[in-house]
Amino acid sequence: MSRINGGLKLFAGTANRHLAERISQHLGAPLGDLTVSRFSDGECYVKYLESVRGVDAYVIQPTCPPVDTNLVELLILMDALRRASAASITAVVPYYGYARQEKKDAPREPITAKLVADVLTAAGANRIMTMDLHAGAIQGFFNIPVDHLTSIPAISNYFKEKNLENTVVVSTDEGRVKTVRQVSSRLNAPIAVGYKFHPTHQKTEMTHLAGDVRGKIPIIVEDIVTTGGSINECVDALLEYGCKPEIYIAATHGVLTEPAFARLNRPEIKEVVVTDTIPAPPDGRLPNLKVLSVAPLFAEAILCVHEDRSIRSLFD
Amino acid sequence: MSRINGGLKLFAGTANRHLAERISQHLGAPLGDLTVSRFSDGECYVKYLESVRGVDAYVIQPTCPPVDTNLVELLILMDALRRASAASITAVVPYYGYARQEKKDAPREPITAKLVADVLTAAGANRIMTMDLHAGAIQGFFNIPVDHLTSIPAISNYFKEKNLENTVVVSTDEGRVKTVRQVSSRLNAPIAVGYKFHPTHQKTEMTHLAGDVRGKIPIIVEDIVTTGGSINECVDALLEYGCKPEIYIAATHGVLTEPAFARLNRPEIKEVVVTDTIPAPPDGRLPNLKVLSVAPLFAEAILCVHEDRSIRSLFD
Amino acid sequence: MSRINGGLKLFAGTANRHLAERISQHLGAPLGDLTVSRFSDGECYVKYLESVRGVDAYVIQPTCPPVDTNLVELLILMDALRRASAASITAVVPYYGYARQEKKDAPREPITAKLVADVLTAAGANRIMTMDLHAGAIQGFFNIPVDHLTSIPAISNYFKEKNLENTVVVSTDEGRVKTVRQVSSRLNAPIAVGYKFHPTHQKTEMTHLAGDVRGKIPIIVEDIVTTGGSINECVDALLEYGCKPEIYIAATHGVLTEPAFARLNRPEIKEVVVTDTIPAPPDGRLPNLKVLSVAPLFAEAILCVHEDRSIRSLFD
Amino acid sequence: MSRINGGLKLFAGTANRHLAERISQHLGAPLGDLTVSRFSDGECYVKYLESVRGVDAYVIQPTCPPVDTNLVELLILMDALRRASAASITAVVPYYGYARQEKKDAPREPITAKLVADVLTAAGANRIMTMDLHAGAIQGFFNIPVDHLTSIPAISNYFKEKNLENTVVVSTDEGRVKTVRQVSSRLNAPIAVGYKFHPTHQKTEMTHLAGDVRGKIPIIVEDIVTTGGSINECVDALLEYGCKPEIYIAATHGVLTEPAFARLNRPEIKEVVVTDTIPAPPDGRLPNLKVLSVAPLFAEAILCVHEDRSIRSLFD
Amino acid sequence: MSRINGGLKLFAGTANRHLAERISQHLGAPLGDLTVSRFSDGECYVKYLESVRGVDAYVIQPTCPPVDTNLVELLILMDALRRASAASITAVVPYYGYARQEKKDAPREPITAKLVADVLTAAGANRIMTMDLHAGAIQGFFNIPVDHLTSIPAISNYFKEKNLENTVVVSTDEGRVKTVRQVSSRLNAPIAVGYKFHPTHQKTEMTHLAGDVRGKIPIIVEDIVTTGGSINECVDALLEYGCKPEIYIAATHGVLTEPAFARLNRPEIKEVVVTDTIPAPPDGRLPNLKVLSVAPLFAEAILCVHEDRSIRSLFD
Amino acid sequence: MSRINGGLKLFAGTANRHLAERISQHLGAPLGDLTVSRFSDGECYVKYLESVRGVDAYVIQPTCPPVDTNLVELLILMDALRRASAASITAVVPYYGYARQEKKDAPREPITAKLVADVLTAAGANRIMTMDLHAGAIQGFFNIPVDHLTSIPAISNYFKEKNLENTVVVSTDEGRVKTVRQVSSRLNAPIAVGYKFHPTHQKTEMTHLAGDVRGKIPIIVEDIVTTGGSINECVDALLEYGCKPEIYIAATHGVLTEPAFARLNRPEIKEVVVTDTIPAPPDGRLPNLKVLSVAPLFAEAILCVHEDRSIRSLFD
Repeated sequence: MSRINGGLKLFAGTANRHLAERISQHLGAPLGDLTVSRFSDGECYVKYLESVRGVDAYVIQPTCPPVDTNLVELLILMDALRRASAASITAVVPYYGYARQEKKDAPREPITAKLVADVLTAAGANRIMTMDLHAGAIQGFFNIPVDHLTSIPAISNYFKEKNLENTVVVSTDEGRVKTVRQVSSRLNAPIAVGYKFHPTHQKTEMTHLAGDVRGKIPIIVEDIVTTGGSINECVDALLEYGCKPEIYIAATHGVLTEPAFARLNRPEIKEVVVTDTIPAPPDGRLPNLKVLSVAPLFAEAILCVHEDRSIRSLFD
Repeated sequence: MSRINGGLKLFAGTANRHLAERISQHLGAPLGDLTVSRFSDGECYVKYLESVRGVDAYVIQPTCPPVDTNLVELLILMDALRRASAASITAVVPYYGYARQEKKDAPREPITAKLVADVLTAAGANRIMTMDLHAGAIQGFFNIPVDHLTSIPAISNYFKEKNLENTVVVSTDEGRVKTVRQVSSRLNAPIAVGYKFHPTHQKTEMTHLAGDVRGKIPIIVEDIVTTGGSINECVDALLEYGCKPEIYIAATHGVLTEPAFARLNRPEIKEVVVTDTIPAPPDGRLPNLKVLSVAPLFAEAILCVHEDRSIRSLFD
Repeated sequence: MSRINGGLKLFAGTANRHLAERISQHLGAPLGDLTVSRFSDGECYVKYLESVRGVDAYVIQPTCPPVDTNLVELLILMDALRRASAASITAVVPYYGYARQEKKDAPREPITAKLVADVLTAAGANRIMTMDLHAGAIQGFFNIPVDHLTSIPAISNYFKEKNLENTVVVSTDEGRVKTVRQVSSRLNAPIAVGYKFHPTHQKTEMTHLAGDVRGKIPIIVEDIVTTGGSINECVDALLEYGCKPEIYIAATHGVLTEPAFARLNRPEIKEVVVTDTIPAPPDGRLPNLKVLSVAPLFAEAILCVHEDRSIRSLFD
Repeated sequence: MSRINGGLKLFAGTANRHLAERISQHLGAPLGDLTVSRFSDGECYVKYLESVRGVDAYVIQPTCPPVDTNLVELLILMDALRRASAASITAVVPYYGYARQEKKDAPREPITAKLVADVLTAAGANRIMTMDLHAGAIQGFFNIPVDHLTSIPAISNYFKEKNLENTVVVSTDEGRVKTVRQVSSRLNAPIAVGYKFHPTHQKTEMTHLAGDVRGKIPIIVEDIVTTGGSINECVDALLEYGCKPEIYIAATHGVLTEPAFARLNRPEIKEVVVTDTIPAPPDGRLPNLKVLSVAPLFAEAILCVHEDRSIRSLFD
Repeated sequence: MSRINGGLKLFAGTANRHLAERISQHLGAPLGDLTVSRFSDGECYVKYLESVRGVDAYVIQPTCPPVDTNLVELLILMDALRRASAASITAVVPYYGYARQEKKDAPREPITAKLVADVLTAAGANRIMTMDLHAGAIQGFFNIPVDHLTSIPAISNYFKEKNLENTVVVSTDEGRVKTVRQVSSRLNAPIAVGYKFHPTHQKTEMTHLAGDVRGKIPIIVEDIVTTGGSINECVDALLEYGCKPEIYIAATHGVLTEPAFARLNRPEIKEVVVTDTIPAPPDGRLPNLKVLSVAPLFAEAILCVHEDRSIRSLFD
Repeated sequence: MSRINGGLKLFAGTANRHLAERISQHLGAPLGDLTVSRFSDGECYVKYLESVRGVDAYVIQPTCPPVDTNLVELLILMDALRRASAASITAVVPYYGYARQEKKDAPREPITAKLVADVLTAAGANRIMTMDLHAGAIQGFFNIPVDHLTSIPAISNYFKEKNLENTVVVSTDEGRVKTVRQVSSRLNAPIAVGYKFHPTHQKTEMTHLAGDVRGKIPIIVEDIVTTGGSINECVDALLEYGCKPEIYIAATHGVLTEPAFARLNRPEIKEVVVTDTIPAPPDGRLPNLKVLSVAPLFAEAILCVHEDRSIRSLFD
């Protein structure tokens, strides 16, 4: 039975229809009727098949690969809502593409994550709902409210229930230490940090580890797994530093491009845990893959927003 | 030898590198050095490899298929220029994708051509240079200057030089009559207009023709050729109405998706004339294809803009 | 009895008080109390005489001649509403002045129709309701919702009920063919299109006709009738091409400036059909004038907007 | 000979062509070539007949009566410049219409002077040059630079050279005391202030005077003279309070509507001094009218702006 | 008992907690729970301790001294509300700091009162509620609704009830005459205006008075009392011109910096009347100080806004 | 001798006049003449004493404590420049106050660092020049160019020249690991990371260290030192884990509030290295303090910007 009353409508773009359906089931609210199609030249065409006048519309569309088409589709979905007099538009973007381009690391680079924020706003978004942004400051790229959900508690609980002994929570590099610390704090486990530098007279960068991993079960925590390259190097370093050959990988967003399937499918990696913010690869592509669903979290968050209740309580 | 002095820099995205190079040759100005690459997950990465501080940057990037990736790439190219302190940014968009979604024809549709205008502006464009927009009013979607070039005179001249006798300029439907009239006026030829309606008791829409085509050589004029579907129907109607089986097609933008190759390759169609705003299909895909280059027009227009001279003189 | 509940208030500027009153009657909602006056130097002064806090205000003001004073009055009417805390402001602009300046046809022209859109938005409009815009793309000049009504079905029905036989729907030039096609489709009648070009060695432009009109009853369809000049030329051409000397003119907006009264008052013109988006000329100025009211359409549209129902159903 | 070098172009709207020509003469810079015309329905059409690419354009157009048409014409003049790539646009508005509606004095009034500022900015103005605004705070209605010229020194000098003895500078009401003080300070003369209140048991408001005027020659100072109504009342009060029957009126802006001609043409009023920010009435309409030209001030100010020199030095 | 229903929440910054509490009592609505603290380096930290989703938030914070910290705190208070999804934000700013910098009196000055308006809007204010602005035109610095309350009637009533005989309402200079006129009109008393000029051959500026004060009881009316300097000079001039040595001072905003305590504590000044828009100085600092509370006015105004009733009725 | 040509002008607010003077000396360009004063009620008053028309203005003003007054002063300094027609305004903000509030860590918090970015932009900044932002993504809070300088190379070089043996670069917590890695890479030294968690059954959080510090000389790297609290805890942990009792602290920004002087003045801390982005404490307050000047870096960067050269070359 539906848990919501009038005014709210869920709509799904084509990026992750499966997640949208699960959110819809959790809410007991059907996905609104709309057409999203492509002309023969690839141009996207959108038309809502039911009135949206005065509704609070939630458009579920992660900007996962193919990132540009998913992004532009989201913009078009919102433009149509705005022109059709929706009362408010919430872009539900479980995975925020281009989040890793959130600052200039070299001269003459763009800050594409900000550009994305600007075009989402320009297209009419009144609110953003997203999860585990690569950098928390991306919230500040917006002046509209951002509901920033996290799957860290869910992922931590998943590992807690495994009752692994003698774990160490590992960051592959200096960038993810904050997230690692959050998991570490929930598991009461120490941390280790991978980093690289050139020892004197050596040409190749070596991966070093700060922190003790000897005899421990490592849980490598990332926000996004893409090619698995840096994870692979980290796994090598962990083994070299003497960890147990029983390694877990955890990440909110499993982008998982082609190289990842080979790299992460090695015996020392017991499990690769991701969520369903992004459609999972076909069965069997990565046998040690475990997908947790964030649909309940998003459903609750949408309900809280709609009923003007605080979201944070969900995560305590 | 270069015809331009300091301050102007041309840059090319990946959408139509060939056209950019021809414009560059006409101007005697090299294409600026930049990297446009894709990460394994498809995210676009841009970096300019030379200083752009204080330059007037012209970014050449039609938003032809794949339209969304070309559009987002253009946005990113401009964001990086803005943050790197370019003095001004001109988006040179020879083909403006989504131009056919410039108004709502049904409820709850987007106006994607306006959305495109808004995001181009939001990404930092100070000026737009484009050609033969599907609707002239798209100029008004911008508050920044729009240089709206046209290839109609060039295409008309091409046919004038053929010295065809007894021609009629044809619009496939009611939407293109204005362009047809412009060609008609330059060739001193009458016009004909295709249109559809359901005669009493008949179910199927038939294509009718207003205007006399009997024994005449038709020149069908379009702004964009995509699938060739409506052209094909128009050709059928023209033949039925008794035209000479010697038909010419002319369009500024040859999007030319798969079905077009079969449909336009029929003996009654003598030639399909398009310009190089969009990369041409591989040799041989459409034997009767003729490509005119608009590179000289764009080169002259850029030069005029840079030297603060009026562009219009080019087209008289 | 009133068909509306709380929250909605209608206000009328001075441009077409008669239409506003008819809309008010159809809705059963009184026109709100306000003062619109002019100081001796012509400056407009506005004051609302009843509270507008929290109301959804609909300001009915076509920007017909005198266009600039009507436009500025509309801006002022909205500024006062915004500062007096109206919850939302809908500019009901049955006739959108300057709509014919919607693109640049020559260098260094303005795009005044866009300028009008910008100043309406700057003055606080949250929504626009208008009718039969000269170019559909003007909808895209706004980022706020535009309810674009049409009187084409009403006008078509009016002619259907006349049961005229052997009609042809005529466009005076290449610009109105789309509207003509819509009427043609509803009347199941063929179309004809006027156009001009210079035949070899002739100096004067002649009006040609594409399409067969011989022995037929022409219905010339326009969006706006102003001076009647191009209609007059078209009538001459139609007669020369052998139509029946029984011609109808139909247009949504009857601007009807001085020259029109002489030109349209000729025996071959049976009737000039317009709507009341613009105040009608005094009785007797144009004996063959027939005015249809769009008040029911606007009343229904306002009701739909206020009750968050889809407007489109009105036109099917 | 021209005092200016490249880059600057003057343009005149139709509101005060005479002033524009005088400014042009003072600068030695011709007025740019443009068309401003009206269609038969009153819509304004603008086209620049010479290139404006890259120029610093100064558009001279006071928004005097007919205020709305002059204002909209100014907006259109700027829109065309912006779209034609002018480098910068300065609206030279010697008289700023609607300046007296600069705050809400009653509920549900507009603040039209701010609305005017917003639409000027929305139409593309980069800078405003104006004179003796009714309220100085109107400068703050803009975020673009405002060059606020004053004719107070010129008017004061005009009276100084008359060598009148025993003068008193008078404000008709509480609103103009600041300006009066500025003149008073330059003439070393005392001030008097008119005001109204209802003494006990009396119904009609009487005009009182604070300050001693007995046997003195009054100079009534205003920013704008419109109907002459409050001036007339003030003259009556001054005579009643025993001033010499030799009264001068001075105002920057002579709007001078019909009633003013009768009211100000009375023997006790020696002279009505205004400037040419607004076109003067026909010769003989007001025999005691004296018009000072502000053209030299505007010419100097434009020159200073163009050469990046401080304007203020002009007024010390 | 509370006079308000759901949806409204009052919050107080630290600038005038006492006034906020009195407003809260009048409304019967508690002040919302929030933390405002300062880090050791002086940075302000804000956190709301109760949900604000969907509420209409009223933040009470005059920008009295320390003006910059109070202003920035107000901005931060609003930013947090916006990001936490408050439905609307009203900045209740009983005293508007920097209001006296509302126009440029010299070249290269800022217009800080407009800057303040811009940053309040940029931080998310949807409405401003303030009192007795130094210049009414500051209302026009905003495009959001401004509720501009006044304490003039309350102050006038206070003096009416004293039944003073033979009073004169005095402005210290030309800037406050309008306010003085309002009090004068309510008390049926004449006015006098202070002003300065240099009589011939004298170096020092003297304060003159326009208007008769001999034997009268002066009520000097100001909007703000800061150092008491100009009031002191005015008192001297009044005494010199022969007023009764029984002088009253009235001002809405008692900023009262150090010098004021000495200057205003002289026997001829019977009473200094201010309101509590600004926290009062410690008891005894100024023995002749009388503080009227504006809390009832603000409470009523908030109630009117919340219930969409007209505010003006409060002041008639 | 001056290294710059016309057009550039440096101005200094009151926040760090000493740094501004050093930058001025390095550039050979004098600080522009302006007044910054405070009225008795603390309101800031600014006036430029030389013309700024058409100049590229650089306003040097870190927003260090007192942060709010320095921030508002900077806004006012820019507002005056904008209104006085400066060609461009660069806010040179060596220390960016509120940078640590760059994301929401709890519900209903503001993102004050974004608010600061918005108000800087609203006040007229065309470009920001700053140093070692707490989070790189703050660059993305702006859409105007941000020149983000760094003192990491200068600080690293300072330590390189000391030729310390067996160092370890330490982060006090998970937030600064990236900066630590940059120093580590330049010194070819390993890293260690402090972090906290609650081991089972223990109530107090303990500081742990990931990475080996035994017998090593630690260099603790921070971006900002404020109270010295977390540094102190880290020093304790380092000693407990067996480092050499010879510890260095390095930070770009030495905010150094009262508690820091006691905490950092302990024998194991050899030196506290900061830069002069913030005025140094009085001599002797922290005997082991070493201040490096960033004036040469800012001077070079300003020169590069002014001459349209790439800044990055400075840091390689």
